[in-house]
Amino acid sequence: MSHYKAPLDNMNFLLFDTLKANQIAECERFEDATEDLFRAVMDEAAKFSEQVLLPVNTQGDREGCQYDPATHSVKTPDGFKDAYQTYMQGGWSGLSASPDFGGQGLPHLLKMIVDEMVCSTNLSFGMYPGLSHGAIDCLTKHGSEALQNAYLPKLIAGEWTGTMCLTEPQCGTDLGLIGTKAIPNGDGYDITGTKIWITGGEQDLVDNIVHLVLAKLPDAPEGSRGISLFLVPKFLEDGTRNTAFCGGLEHKMGINGSATCVMNFEGAKGWLIGEPNKGLKCMFTMMNAARIMVGIQGLGLAETGYQVSLAFAKERLQSRSIAGTEYPNEKADPIIVHPDVRRMLLRQKAIIEGSRAMAYWTGLHLDLSHGHADSSQRERSDDIVQLMTPIVKSFLTDEGFFSCDQALQSMGGAGFTQDWPVEQLLRDGRIPRIYEGTNGIQALDLVGRKLTLNNGRLAHTYLSEMKNMLEGVSNSGHLASANSFIETLQETLGLLIIKAAKDPQEAAAAATPLLRMFALTTLAVLWAKMASQSEDAETMNNYSEAFLSSKRKTANHYFRSYEPEMIALAKEVAAGKSTLMDFAEDEF
Amino acid sequence: MSHYKAPLDNMNFLLFDTLKANQIAECERFEDATEDLFRAVMDEAAKFSEQVLLPVNTQGDREGCQYDPATHSVKTPDGFKDAYQTYMQGGWSGLSASPDFGGQGLPHLLKMIVDEMVCSTNLSFGMYPGLSHGAIDCLTKHGSEALQNAYLPKLIAGEWTGTMCLTEPQCGTDLGLIGTKAIPNGDGYDITGTKIWITGGEQDLVDNIVHLVLAKLPDAPEGSRGISLFLVPKFLEDGTRNTAFCGGLEHKMGINGSATCVMNFEGAKGWLIGEPNKGLKCMFTMMNAARIMVGIQGLGLAETGYQVSLAFAKERLQSRSIAGTEYPNEKADPIIVHPDVRRMLLRQKAIIEGSRAMAYWTGLHLDLSHGHADSSQRERSDDIVQLMTPIVKSFLTDEGFFSCDQALQSMGGAGFTQDWPVEQLLRDGRIPRIYEGTNGIQALDLVGRKLTLNNGRLAHTYLSEMKNMLEGVSNSGHLASANSFIETLQETLGLLIIKAAKDPQEAAAAATPLLRMFALTTLAVLWAKMASQSEDAETMNNYSEAFLSSKRKTANHYFRSYEPEMIALAKEVAAGKSTLMDFAEDEF
Repeated sequence: MSHYKAPLDNMNFLLFDTLKANQIAECERFEDATEDLFRAVMDEAAKFSEQVLLPVNTQGDREGCQYDPATHSVKTPDGFKDAYQTYMQGGWSGLSASPDFGGQGLPHLLKMIVDEMVCSTNLSFGMYPGLSHGAIDCLTKHGSEALQNAYLPKLIAGEWTGTMCLTEPQCGTDLGLIGTKAIPNGDGYDITGTKIWITGGEQDLVDNIVHLVLAKLPDAPEGSRGISLFLVPKFLEDGTRNTAFCGGLEHKMGINGSATCVMNFEGAKGWLIGEPNKGLKCMFTMMNAARIMVGIQGLGLAETGYQVSLAFAKERLQSRSIAGTEYPNEKADPIIVHPDVRRMLLRQKAIIEGSRAMAYWTGLHLDLSHGHADSSQRERSDDIVQLMTPIVKSFLTDEGFFSCDQALQSMGGAGFTQDWPVEQLLRDGRIPRIYEGTNGIQALDLVGRKLTLNNGRLAHTYLSEMKNMLEGVSNSGHLASANSFIETLQETLGLLIIKAAKDPQEAAAAATPLLRMFALTTLAVLWAKMASQSEDAETMNNYSEAFLSSKRKTANHYFRSYEPEMIALAKEVAAGKSTLMDFAEDEF
Repeated sequence: MSHYKAPLDNMNFLLFDTLKANQIAECERFEDATEDLFRAVMDEAAKFSEQVLLPVNTQGDREGCQYDPATHSVKTPDGFKDAYQTYMQGGWSGLSASPDFGGQGLPHLLKMIVDEMVCSTNLSFGMYPGLSHGAIDCLTKHGSEALQNAYLPKLIAGEWTGTMCLTEPQCGTDLGLIGTKAIPNGDGYDITGTKIWITGGEQDLVDNIVHLVLAKLPDAPEGSRGISLFLVPKFLEDGTRNTAFCGGLEHKMGINGSATCVMNFEGAKGWLIGEPNKGLKCMFTMMNAARIMVGIQGLGLAETGYQVSLAFAKERLQSRSIAGTEYPNEKADPIIVHPDVRRMLLRQKAIIEGSRAMAYWTGLHLDLSHGHADSSQRERSDDIVQLMTPIVKSFLTDEGFFSCDQALQSMGGAGFTQDWPVEQLLRDGRIPRIYEGTNGIQALDLVGRKLTLNNGRLAHTYLSEMKNMLEGVSNSGHLASANSFIETLQETLGLLIIKAAKDPQEAAAAATPLLRMFALTTLAVLWAKMASQSEDAETMNNYSEAFLSSKRKTANHYFRSYEPEMIALAKEVAAGKSTLMDFAEDEF
């Protein structure tokens, strides 16, 4: 009983009415990316997701991936191979990749929108090209010409896929502990070590897999400054099988259709990407896009959860409205009449549409930071992207999960059964909060790194951009509310910076609630802006009255629901580290 | 890598130091239930749970239950049958049941404690005797002498089990829509209809299953006032197979070891329990105990999640403390040094220990409401039980889930894999928030029924009891904080009662946040009391210094974390229904 229609109206309203994403086409490198092209690509992505990916999502969960120890091979679920062929033939894998190697060079923002639809309909499937995209990005930025020519065309065409091999049993967050070794062999390097949680490390979708592997050279410095990055293909250019083998699959709570592999590199041939000992830097240059992409996963799942639970709430007849029977010809009223069901639905709606606005706004600046003609705008946009990346990743994945949780709850027992897709959404949605840097690590990135860069310039840019966005907002209630979010955030930041300068543990203790304050503030400003946009004369021509009034009502609900939490978060930040750090280990 | 030790120190501190549960033995019917007996039973329950139930919990999840359509039979997971034999032989099934039919007549509070350990180690297993207990309770209160004599001894001995058959495809919350029919047949009734989500409706643990079935008599009034309750055994007294058959199993997100059955009654022989058309009343007299028991499920799961994630946080070495290396001889510090990991652990600890205090306090009053010599104390205790039942059910199951969620998050990728037990705890923990009345329905029970009973007497009793509990609390900070929770709750109640009198939708819109305010207030008072108790001279003789100081530090952390949320909830209640009810259906 799965159900998904790409929310094109919401996406269009956001892109072309609210955020004026049309400005992307003013960048020289994106001159083809007109509104018409955006719309055409989005329509095709909607069809592909609804008609190709959604139908194989449940099967992917139930069947999972199968590992054959005799051949070290992995079979993906029935239907995935065909879906991948369709994906490849549709040209989706090269959407935002470099035209120099066969890509279409379209904006990241457009790719984000396509990714949202893919994640809404089949997150497990989306992981394979998703990781490939990371490898493409990394190779495009840091690979030698020889490696680029040998690998990028096939990767971009989707004929081959890529992986990112970072984690080892003894190191996840702390990559300084990596034990995988790279020994020079004249031509390149022999790579030896075990990597875990490698998405798509082995699978049957494509003929060759290109692993990007973090490892240490023999004379490498200790810790994270001694890590290098290597390209290790499954098959070498002469067709020989390289000694990089899948040793097994993880058994997980969700994303069962995605092959999460243990990878054993047994003196596998590899080639250096970038400079020796600069591997982490190479890896991290593509982290912003990758982390924003993980945020989009949370958003995509939440959208489907909302659509399914909303349809259920309109159909399921149970009890009468407390205000008096609304559907006298039915045996009971649909549960959407009940205030507590509305509470669950509107939490989803306010967060999903607000989060989408935050993500697309960040995506817009990601493109402007690369493509804008004016260097000061590029810098300004880059500030926003740097600051917002951990926020988009954490908030969208946390709230994506909790949104699916509310969807499930509003459906009662039905939601807990596998007759409906929501329990899978909740299971699949549990992992984006963890991978690509746990949400706690994102919060530390925000307070420990992003807020301190360039003497705090990023937060300054952010706050001025928030105020800019409120210009022209006519509803005085929304304006006052959004400004109160900004002021609360600004005060909290001011106090925290003083404390953290004396004691970095204070920043670490405040990281998670502070990240949430940034997110709630961004949503507040964007809700004020969306509500205001719904009264614009030109906009009013293009959407139904219910669609437009819904924006204003959802903004009202957002402010009503989250202003109190914003104050509470400020108090939590102000409360500081003491009650956390007072505990000795034996007092837990 | 599962791990559980019954938290006996915490339980003892709560029972015998803080709540003075010894007073139960002053009730004539519980005169055997001395502290020594409590401790002896708890020690045995700990051994049984740790050694018998925990080892078969993972297998139960992976294997699940198997249905054979040819014979309508259900096979439980390997190991469940043996575990059930041990449970039965240990006399656990009759712990709190009536001695008139072979039970041990011990307090409900003691049963709750045993149930907590059972749910911590194997929720799926615990569902079978848990539902049996409900049937025993109902039959003891409402069955005819003949039915009691025929069924109670076997049920109480655990040789047979019982079920509760309420839900049908078209009715869950709204039982007025029941379609199952009961036609008089001279001896008893022929029952025909389909019931769904029947826990243990069919299984291979015991020889006979006794179904309690809600159905309608031919001349029954419309709606919920026309429902009667029937006893329908799988095998009749002469050994004939009754025509009550399992038609299949639900496929669920969790509790896979628990058989959730579709039950088809095909003219099955049944006998009336209680009076015609009073079936719902019979069912609801045992609802308080059943709902509190579901709350305990959430608590039990959370305790195991905490123990597993705490052990992980002490062992997993990753990165150095931001305040400087703490374990120079290790390659990294254990992650428990990091403030953000502590935030996740302490949320669990503060909520689990506080919730346990709330549940046991309610359980104590459940026993006093039945057994106390003084009728005014019985009434007072009954007020507390009535009011607290929906609160214990909702808060403990919601927070049990979110506590397991924090456990999983603090473990990173490991938590998402099936190598660790936490992902199962989270999946199993999703359903207690739904069954036995969804948590939204509990909140409506609180505002719509419990707060209006006897002119609001229940809330009055509750508030005066909260203030009583604060007598003797010496820490002025804790006292002021706990009092501020009480005052905030009291003000919010005062305002809401005025609004709700004019518009019942206002009460319904406020139900969920208001329920949470009651829970947070109760925990505040109990944390103040536990912290205070930790400085009592006699108490100090019996526990380690770390255990006692931990109580005070956790109380500090509780107040620091939840005072801001309490204010936010009050604002949410005050904001009222408008932003929820303004939406037309096409505006969602």
